Amino acid sequence: MFIEVYPTAQSVKDLNGKTAIVIDVLRATSVITTALHNGAERVIPVPSVEDAFRLARDLKYNSLLGGERGAVKIPGFDLGNSPLEYKKELVAGKTVILTTSNGTKAIKASESAEHILIGCFLNASAAAGKALQFALSSETPGVAVVCAGTLGEFSLDDAACAGLIVDSLVRNIERMNEIPELSDLAFACRDLYLEHRHDLKAFISHAAHFKRLLGLGLEKDIDYCLQRDVINCVPVYDKRTPIIDVPLITLFTNPPF
Amino acid sequence: MFIEVYPTAQSVKDLNGKTAIVIDVLRATSVITTALHNGAERVIPVPSVEDAFRLARDLKYNSLLGGERGAVKIPGFDLGNSPLEYKKELVAGKTVILTTSNGTKAIKASESAEHILIGCFLNASAAAGKALQFALSSETPGVAVVCAGTLGEFSLDDAACAGLIVDSLVRNIERMNEIPELSDLAFACRDLYLEHRHDLKAFISHAAHFKRLLGLGLEKDIDYCLQRDVINCVPVYDKRTPIIDVPLITLFTNPPF
Repeated sequence: MFIEVYPTAQSVKDLNGKTAIVIDVLRATSVITTALHNGAERVIPVPSVEDAFRLARDLKYNSLLGGERGAVKIPGFDLGNSPLEYKKELVAGKTVILTTSNGTKAIKASESAEHILIGCFLNASAAAGKALQFALSSETPGVAVVCAGTLGEFSLDDAACAGLIVDSLVRNIERMNEIPELSDLAFACRDLYLEHRHDLKAFISHAAHFKRLLGLGLEKDIDYCLQRDVINCVPVYDKRTPIIDVPLITLFTNPPF
Repeated sequence: MFIEVYPTAQSVKDLNGKTAIVIDVLRATSVITTALHNGAERVIPVPSVEDAFRLARDLKYNSLLGGERGAVKIPGFDLGNSPLEYKKELVAGKTVILTTSNGTKAIKASESAEHILIGCFLNASAAAGKALQFALSSETPGVAVVCAGTLGEFSLDDAACAGLIVDSLVRNIERMNEIPELSDLAFACRDLYLEHRHDLKAFISHAAHFKRLLGLGLEKDIDYCLQRDVINCVPVYDKRTPIIDVPLITLFTNPPF
């Protein structure tokens, strides 16, 4: 089975027939995974702040507005982009409308895939397992790990997480006595992860985005997001029907389909 | 000084004011460096086979046609894309008109840079030294290492060479008691290179492009291209004037400007 990694939303090619895992470790996909794990009914990522307000107004669901611009909470929103804010008592049963700088673009860029999952360090092995399950049931099996990157650039945090997910995929595939085939970037990300897995934070501290978040006093967010395999929930993109006429994506933790 | 790496020609952004080092290890920039080192008067990379034939016809210089499509020599050409063919007795005093799949695109993609150099393992440290010299004399110093990649994808061979060049730049900058600032990908490439520098061939053997060349019986080319710092010649792109009306780039080893 072929496993590939894309470094940014902008670099994604045709994923027809493949299963995609979208990663934006710091922090969008960590937020989505946490919110659904803590009982949010659904997460709807939208491209713009205007879309978010419009959707919240038109939606029949009990919703919360979340997200960031420049890593900072948006005025008028209920929540920022810190996964620590998405507590059970706040999000359980709610629909979270989320707009972030890089994560939403990566999900949109993966729309040609047959299945789209959300991954991060928190649920990395679970995401790899679920992706393999989907890929094996596809006529053209293949997994594409799509990193959001930061402002259109390769980001060390996403690359390291992609490496962990690739490693988990490889181990699963080898256990089935199959031979995994890795793209050059998939090989490089796995290599970087395996080399630095015992001190992931030191490695990721070289990322420009890490430094930016640290400068904003968000070290607790970083520490939370770098925890590995503490959540089993794997958000799945529901491709069927947009709820209202806005370019949106609905994510369910337990898809009703 | 800021040092960045671009994984493919397609990913290159505005390089205004910066010094670019273009890399296509297997094999275009290794061919260019070897040809100029062996006394070729100039190398003119052109985008298409038609451009190459037209230029050879119109050119006043004593020229040789070189290049590949699908890693194979082009019918009617004097030389393929093996650096081993570009021997002194053949290329000395000649103008080499070269067309390759990935290398030419990467040079074109870097045209916004203030200076463009050609790098590969053969001349890595010399290229880093010359780039730093150019960058320091620029108003907005910065070095961009532009990997050609393979068919629009990140390639391990170019990434490892970028890592060696970044490492050389970092050491030079630190010797000047300055602090180098690395983009995430520059950091990752340097890390990969330093980890695998003692068995570079084993590392690069995981590259899809390596496997393709090996399958074509080109292991001798690979072994030649993986030699480090055996050539001091650093080809420089002459931006001044195209020789005739064709989209072209002229490279000189000792630029007459």
